[in-house]
Amino acid sequence: MSIAVTILGNTSAKPTSTGHPSAQVVNVNEQLFLVDAGEGVQRQMMRYGLSPLKLRAVFISHLHGDHLFGLFPLLSTMGLYGRRTPLRIYAPRPFGEMLEAFLRLCESNLPYTPEWIEVDTTKHQIIFENDTTEIWSLPLRHRVPTAGYLFRQKEPPLNVSKYAIERYGLSIAQIVAAKRGEDVTLDSGEVLANSAITYRPYGTLSYAYCSDTNYSARVAKMAEGVDMLYHEATYAAAEKKLAKERGHASTIDAAKVAKMANAGRLLIGHFSSRYKDLQILLDECRELFPATDIAEEGKTFLIEPKTTKR
Amino acid sequence: MSIAVTILGNTSAKPTSTGHPSAQVVNVNEQLFLVDAGEGVQRQMMRYGLSPLKLRAVFISHLHGDHLFGLFPLLSTMGLYGRRTPLRIYAPRPFGEMLEAFLRLCESNLPYTPEWIEVDTTKHQIIFENDTTEIWSLPLRHRVPTAGYLFRQKEPPLNVSKYAIERYGLSIAQIVAAKRGEDVTLDSGEVLANSAITYRPYGTLSYAYCSDTNYSARVAKMAEGVDMLYHEATYAAAEKKLAKERGHASTIDAAKVAKMANAGRLLIGHFSSRYKDLQILLDECRELFPATDIAEEGKTFLIEPKTTKR
Repeated sequence: MSIAVTILGNTSAKPTSTGHPSAQVVNVNEQLFLVDAGEGVQRQMMRYGLSPLKLRAVFISHLHGDHLFGLFPLLSTMGLYGRRTPLRIYAPRPFGEMLEAFLRLCESNLPYTPEWIEVDTTKHQIIFENDTTEIWSLPLRHRVPTAGYLFRQKEPPLNVSKYAIERYGLSIAQIVAAKRGEDVTLDSGEVLANSAITYRPYGTLSYAYCSDTNYSARVAKMAEGVDMLYHEATYAAAEKKLAKERGHASTIDAAKVAKMANAGRLLIGHFSSRYKDLQILLDECRELFPATDIAEEGKTFLIEPKTTKR
Repeated sequence: MSIAVTILGNTSAKPTSTGHPSAQVVNVNEQLFLVDAGEGVQRQMMRYGLSPLKLRAVFISHLHGDHLFGLFPLLSTMGLYGRRTPLRIYAPRPFGEMLEAFLRLCESNLPYTPEWIEVDTTKHQIIFENDTTEIWSLPLRHRVPTAGYLFRQKEPPLNVSKYAIERYGLSIAQIVAAKRGEDVTLDSGEVLANSAITYRPYGTLSYAYCSDTNYSARVAKMAEGVDMLYHEATYAAAEKKLAKERGHASTIDAAKVAKMANAGRLLIGHFSSRYKDLQILLDECRELFPATDIAEEGKTFLIEPKTTKR
């Protein structure tokens, strides 16, 4: 029950001959979510052993090409592979118009339905939810309407400790009641507080994706306590003015957000092509927030479960 | 004054993790033309040292994604690089609607104008012409309207042979007249036939691109005498029925067209992903048409000028 993030690209607007633009696959409890879809994302998924047919949903932060142009070829390929399951695509307006044009002009016979779910980029709210997972929108500050995404595992069901079962000779009925969160009254009349006999088998993990954006203290608050934060760091500190003007973040911005959010660790990406060596970007972040890493293409970053078993 | 063809991709519909879909750059007398634009074409151009800013025009055979999806990201990137020169895109209908949707929804501020020139895929006619080059459409037989393209160098201006100039002591006026194609009358009254004193400094070269298509004897006739023919060979001979049904060619079809056209050489491409080893495809073609090669990604095929200097 971990979260694993595989980086498929980390370059910004101008592509390079060696790197790919923004895209990553977030695996939450074995459900695969694609976050952004820069050009070439389908080949990158293949390269790193991630089947497009297993995608549960797609989340697009904003409609700039370096986050989007790989999506349509991917949708076509899923059709070639015979996908039947509808695919939800969460994206800001006017993505629906693009999808409509694509389906009308390029793919009028797809064997499955891609469904657009509009993301309100001004709101922080749950946009996806099932038994184990919540996904929240994060209002980012870019030149066009942009949302980040916050992935949160839900609390797992309660387990009853083996020690309590043996010590008190709990019956099946009592165990089931305890799993529901109830206190248990023994035959002796003794009441066992639920918290004394149950535990969560693992803690909940979370991951936030923030690209593209200016520095935002508001986003840091929304991501409070996140285990891993991906934050764009298009520019080095020396270019902070340029970063601000262009709706982007500097290394310092990214590190400040991670620090303010009390994030477990920080991944930086979306680098300007001017930086041939990324070490300076990493060093600048680490000075403020030591647990920083480069979101290196092809690497999978695992958020380990905090086991609380007893 | 050669023709050079750089292969940027040769896979068919389903992309692979190692190869790219159809795209090639045809260099005719130092003018760069992009022919088809499968996903990733801009990175492929960068990788092989071909500047998108130098593209004179783009030719799209048909509107299937594996020939098209790389075009829009490329158009965006040319904008980022500050292209100002309008770019003509030759493509069948309804490409104009796609371009309009792209410009409206993705790139409303491009610093240059991409112009759509509609290609009538039922006609064999000149669609591009300047002082040195002609480009003809070739009506192909695919599941959707599809055109091939035939690149032809025009005949170079006449040169007057140095031998004739010296032997007859030709004046500047006489040389200029001979270059215009006129016979020259000497002071003695002797008439020198134009053909006896002039020559073309080099022969004209030609290249034909045929993908995607069923076998077509008509196309072979249109490409009569072509120096190099690129012809799709999606399937091996054993799958000729499948090839026919899907609007594609087998190895035998490709070799037959090359033979019937008296082509100088044949390049095959657009391979189905089922063929991990292409040797069987090559062998089947070579049996019928020995001068066959695989259109290998990253390779440049040069058509050498036939020098007629004397």
